[in-house]
Amino acid sequence: MSDTDPPVFDRLCAFLRETAILESTLSMLGWDERTGMPPEAAGYRGEQMTYLAGLIHSRRTDPQLGEWLDELTDSTLDAEPHSLTSTVIRESKRQFDRQQKLPSSLVKEITRTAVQGQHDWQRAREQNDFSIFLPNLEHMVRLKCQEADAVGFTECRYDALLDEYEPWATTAETAAILGKLREDLVSLLGEITSRSPLIADECLKRSFDIEKQKKFGNEVAAAIGFDFQRGRLDTTIHPFCTEIGPDDTRITTRYDEHFLPTALFGILHEAGHGIYEQGLQKEWYGLPPGQTISLGIHESQSRIWENQIGRSRAFWKYFYPRAQQLFASSLAEVSLDDFYAAVNTATPSLIRVEADEVTYNLHILIRFELEQLLVDQQLRVADLPDAWNEKYESYLGMRPQNPAEGVLQDIHWSGGAIGYFPTYALGNLYSAQFFAQCKKDIPDLDKRIANGDFAPFRTWLQENIHQWGQRYSAGELVERVTGEPLAHHFLIDYLRGKMSEIYNL
Amino acid sequence: MSDTDPPVFDRLCAFLRETAILESTLSMLGWDERTGMPPEAAGYRGEQMTYLAGLIHSRRTDPQLGEWLDELTDSTLDAEPHSLTSTVIRESKRQFDRQQKLPSSLVKEITRTAVQGQHDWQRAREQNDFSIFLPNLEHMVRLKCQEADAVGFTECRYDALLDEYEPWATTAETAAILGKLREDLVSLLGEITSRSPLIADECLKRSFDIEKQKKFGNEVAAAIGFDFQRGRLDTTIHPFCTEIGPDDTRITTRYDEHFLPTALFGILHEAGHGIYEQGLQKEWYGLPPGQTISLGIHESQSRIWENQIGRSRAFWKYFYPRAQQLFASSLAEVSLDDFYAAVNTATPSLIRVEADEVTYNLHILIRFELEQLLVDQQLRVADLPDAWNEKYESYLGMRPQNPAEGVLQDIHWSGGAIGYFPTYALGNLYSAQFFAQCKKDIPDLDKRIANGDFAPFRTWLQENIHQWGQRYSAGELVERVTGEPLAHHFLIDYLRGKMSEIYNL
Repeated sequence: MSDTDPPVFDRLCAFLRETAILESTLSMLGWDERTGMPPEAAGYRGEQMTYLAGLIHSRRTDPQLGEWLDELTDSTLDAEPHSLTSTVIRESKRQFDRQQKLPSSLVKEITRTAVQGQHDWQRAREQNDFSIFLPNLEHMVRLKCQEADAVGFTECRYDALLDEYEPWATTAETAAILGKLREDLVSLLGEITSRSPLIADECLKRSFDIEKQKKFGNEVAAAIGFDFQRGRLDTTIHPFCTEIGPDDTRITTRYDEHFLPTALFGILHEAGHGIYEQGLQKEWYGLPPGQTISLGIHESQSRIWENQIGRSRAFWKYFYPRAQQLFASSLAEVSLDDFYAAVNTATPSLIRVEADEVTYNLHILIRFELEQLLVDQQLRVADLPDAWNEKYESYLGMRPQNPAEGVLQDIHWSGGAIGYFPTYALGNLYSAQFFAQCKKDIPDLDKRIANGDFAPFRTWLQENIHQWGQRYSAGELVERVTGEPLAHHFLIDYLRGKMSEIYNL
Repeated sequence: MSDTDPPVFDRLCAFLRETAILESTLSMLGWDERTGMPPEAAGYRGEQMTYLAGLIHSRRTDPQLGEWLDELTDSTLDAEPHSLTSTVIRESKRQFDRQQKLPSSLVKEITRTAVQGQHDWQRAREQNDFSIFLPNLEHMVRLKCQEADAVGFTECRYDALLDEYEPWATTAETAAILGKLREDLVSLLGEITSRSPLIADECLKRSFDIEKQKKFGNEVAAAIGFDFQRGRLDTTIHPFCTEIGPDDTRITTRYDEHFLPTALFGILHEAGHGIYEQGLQKEWYGLPPGQTISLGIHESQSRIWENQIGRSRAFWKYFYPRAQQLFASSLAEVSLDDFYAAVNTATPSLIRVEADEVTYNLHILIRFELEQLLVDQQLRVADLPDAWNEKYESYLGMRPQNPAEGVLQDIHWSGGAIGYFPTYALGNLYSAQFFAQCKKDIPDLDKRIANGDFAPFRTWLQENIHQWGQRYSAGELVERVTGEPLAHHFLIDYLRGKMSEIYNL
């Protein structure tokens, strides 16, 4: 190293920023693939994405990166663990270490198996036959166990898998809090289902012109603060949010002419993800202080807009007149109270993505518990469908009649995403706890929302969560913002409050 | 080299295919930038594109590539110069040699100057003041002279610049044929303008609903054979065609509610480019046998659909009823004959992109002649506006009243594209010569077109032009397909035939 070389930290940052250019370019290819790519272009798009993923992987595991990180860890790590410098080094090292520990033969085999898995899963689902997917899933579970063993763990294999999606979280803590959540949810759901008649959501299933839905969705997303100068909203089959640059966040949705909530709450959900991305510090783009913390925190930002805000009475006080105007033939005769109740209906169901706020986390819990059993080798993959059905019977009181409405409904496992599901439930817990704090910090929040003034809430999220990037772990952030560790009662209190009113519990 | 290594030729092809992945990814970023990118994303998009361009440039000049090419040129070059193997080696070597000869400092300075140039040009155009653009253009002309000197040439500097866009073409041959074209065009135009009254194109300037224009444009593009399973049509400001993969060709257009030809002939033009890309051999994607020959041949494919087909009476016999149906309020009372005459009006004008078939090439000739004077240092950049105006007066009988409608109208020079303009005129010459041959080969072509049967014509193009990729140079291809070298009389005969009928010459 000569005197004229920039300091190691600067070189590290420059290197990471270049990697981010490739990553954001890969996101561009992925966004296009899922929004407008011509049908026959899929084959070559796969080659493009594989090639870029390879370039990115070789940069992420570049020995030079390891040398810089070693040097910085020894010499530069700041006394202040949450400083920008410390954050860059700590989080880069965490990611590098994980990547380094994975033999490239294993990475390739997982990729190969995932490609085949998505194919097999789709076919199994179409034919409603789990046995078509079984061999692939067995292989994937074995590979993920190998991955966990390669990465290493203190208490259990699942720790190593969960860590990929929710860094610094442990299985034990997650299981403890989600276990308590399950008990209280099952109990709450029991109270709700014992009430009759159920609230009707028939008014949401009338005809809603798709062009008008698009108009409304765009208005809502812009109103809550998704910045269309720095983002887009497009149509897709499986909605997602992706960032293609510090000023380029793209959200997507799908429209169902005969079910208003699909696009409406879908847009609020994805806009929540998007507002998080847009709230990061641009000058740290591609570096840990400018990156999102975890899937759980990301999900908290989508759910807080979708549920705490989007399913609140205040929100509909503001937006319902506009909805009635746009969808006059379907909603003109429906009162605000009835509409509010309809979008908050809680009913046990078999399909996760259609689940309401109360039952959703039970769907997650089932998957989380089954995943742990699989990687601990306490459950054979062949026995998964029965175990799945048992748990649905036990927690939701319903038993899937076939694999398509049971164990085959989610794409995640086919792609090797084991350890991902609990981040959905964590997101719901984070969002409830953040929201409880925000209501304390902004006493007139309801009034603001009812007036269509979303800026104070968005600013609260930006100042308390978005701007910090990865400077705090998810757990640290929750404690920092709310003054206490993650607890399940915030979500239960929130749900019980709303449901008590709606179902007159 | 060990025995297990693949042969050098295979390694060369694999390397070039990887480069093509990066190039097509860069095209993806460029397409998005010009069709839907959020406004504020431009800054980072520039970083992404610059980084990828850098990766591509370093691959194109990789010494390993030079070694392989040397080895192959010495040992493998096929006895058959148009074989697939020979084509790969010859064309790769041509491109590599050119890249190699350019000092990277010069490449960077040209890039830097082009970025600044587009900025200065835009400002100059807005303020209608050539002096704002002058220093940058002077610098660019100097740099392009250096580029020509670095690349080398036999007869004149302009050869080296032209070669970038129209490989294997020479200035002398191009000047000779375009010179003859100019004489005959000036004469033809004189006859046309002496006739009065001029044909009216007022019917094209009525109101044409943009959604209906989109519908019509998509129908037309699909009907002539642009494959929407392997492509898209989008809206942009400055229309273009780009390929993002062997099965992913994207065309764009812009719509003017009060001028039907803008989008209509724009779509036919870009679809012509697109059909060429879609007609290449997929299995050679990214390699010379699967790549387009030259800008001139590319332009011939857009112009042949736009003009020879799109402005023919047969074409409108088929499509005019549909146009009248869609745009009833504007076209119901306009006869097919009047519409046909309107889309074939020839009138001198000052703006190239608005020019008709007869006058268009005169606009090109002016630029081609001025470019040669500039790089031969026979004309100072400061004197360019006057020289421009003189030539317009002389060839078109009109004198620009200010730089915006004169020398500042085109973006090309600001980006360093000197030597590009003549490929537009060459494209028109190629298209007329190809079309004359095609009419011989398909005697009932007119009838087919009038019946909406575009397949025979498209197949003729594919078999005679598209499928060969770069196996023949533009000049070789013309001779191969039509039995004689490029000649200007095909275009003159075509135009005179049409104009004689319309203007009753």
